Amino acid sequence: MDQPVIGDVFGEMVRDAYAVRTGIGPRPLAGGRMPRPVIEIIERDDGLINGAPADHYLAEPDEWPAHDHRALRLCRGATLDIGCGAGRTALELQRRGMAVTGLDISPGAIEVARKRGLRDTVLATVDEYARAETRYDTFAMLGNNLGLLEGPERAPVFLAALATLARPGARLIAHGTDPYGTTDPVHVGYHRRNRERGRLGGQLRLRLRYRLQSTDWFDYLVCSVDELEQLLVGTPWRLTSVDIEDKPYYLAVMELRNR
Amino acid sequence: MDQPVIGDVFGEMVRDAYAVRTGIGPRPLAGGRMPRPVIEIIERDDGLINGAPADHYLAEPDEWPAHDHRALRLCRGATLDIGCGAGRTALELQRRGMAVTGLDISPGAIEVARKRGLRDTVLATVDEYARAETRYDTFAMLGNNLGLLEGPERAPVFLAALATLARPGARLIAHGTDPYGTTDPVHVGYHRRNRERGRLGGQLRLRLRYRLQSTDWFDYLVCSVDELEQLLVGTPWRLTSVDIEDKPYYLAVMELRNR
Repeated sequence: MDQPVIGDVFGEMVRDAYAVRTGIGPRPLAGGRMPRPVIEIIERDDGLINGAPADHYLAEPDEWPAHDHRALRLCRGATLDIGCGAGRTALELQRRGMAVTGLDISPGAIEVARKRGLRDTVLATVDEYARAETRYDTFAMLGNNLGLLEGPERAPVFLAALATLARPGARLIAHGTDPYGTTDPVHVGYHRRNRERGRLGGQLRLRLRYRLQSTDWFDYLVCSVDELEQLLVGTPWRLTSVDIEDKPYYLAVMELRNR
Repeated sequence: MDQPVIGDVFGEMVRDAYAVRTGIGPRPLAGGRMPRPVIEIIERDDGLINGAPADHYLAEPDEWPAHDHRALRLCRGATLDIGCGAGRTALELQRRGMAVTGLDISPGAIEVARKRGLRDTVLATVDEYARAETRYDTFAMLGNNLGLLEGPERAPVFLAALATLARPGARLIAHGTDPYGTTDPVHVGYHRRNRERGRLGGQLRLRLRYRLQSTDWFDYLVCSVDELEQLLVGTPWRLTSVDIEDKPYYLAVMELRNR
């Protein structure tokens, strides 16, 4: 089989999902006629593959899970939406008159977010953006974006970059999922094998695929609240509250330690 | 990455889709709580990957496209539903009091079809089943199952097996899709490369994946009506009518040549 091409998988996918949702622009077609629902395909390094409809990346506030609304109520001041994607949450903050910047590494996602009306966008990693002058009061990592911490090696670097971007008293609001409630042997076995290799159980090794494209393999962290607390040790951030109303999902609020 | 395991991908998938649709039995869960829609993942040998919701394999008659209803009106006498899957069309024929056998090579699909009430099922290829004594008046290959002809090498063998299973005057009703209406460069280029390799343009080389499992690579034929006519030359079957109301889909009706 030909290997997929490395590319902006998320961007291509969300561009098509936007076209399907709005009816604007060329859409992927089935049988040359019926628009297909756009499916996000995720491969894990144990051979597991899963597909899920991508339309939720464009969901309007009335379609959101309740914890997203609670997360937005925790945002104050100038907010950086990290991994903003197609602008789902950043657009709502902007609508509410808040100062919000959407940051993403996907050119296609930033393009869709701008098309949808998001005014302030940055195409960069947090490390790259930390060299800019702009500073923030709130960092939002919603839609399971706590995963962007990747694991014990990346997390302190990532969190240091956020501290550089932070105003005094800044707050980090992250949405995570506790992976350890499952009894599915496929996942339980994967967690065990990860630990045997010196990784966190839910330190997933993934790649996304869409049509002819693939991402490189990357780590994405699904961790418990205890594991998150451990990761914060020695970083400029401390955990100040956890909203566990929608288990296994949680909203973790972190604040800058006094320096 | 670990390689996926070769297994009954379609059966596993349709078993989960049945659990999600009915709420009966263990279902694949997202985040340990919300049932996921089951997604069929198809890889093509040029690296293309596509996902599509699998629920349509369980669709009730009021959810079907119109050509499926027209196809069922063409069935008469004892009918063999080839590639019956979860029994979608066979169950409706049975409900109408017709003699129908559902044939599939997927143990999981046959299991679901029987659970849904299909009484007469066969777990076999058409070649294997042709050694049995049973004979049929109608062969139904719906849900794009014309693809089971695979290509110019397999088609005459497949069609000869059906002729062995046929009573005099038997009829073959097959649902196909003309692949050549597309302008999508991904597909147009694939068709060209196939022809350069001596294959039919729409002679797809595919494998299905679901969770940890994969099928082997197999050919699945998406052909025009002209190509179908060519494939029938020298076989016991002749094309007698084509319903092209729902282009690019078509229903081809074939009958046994006078022998």
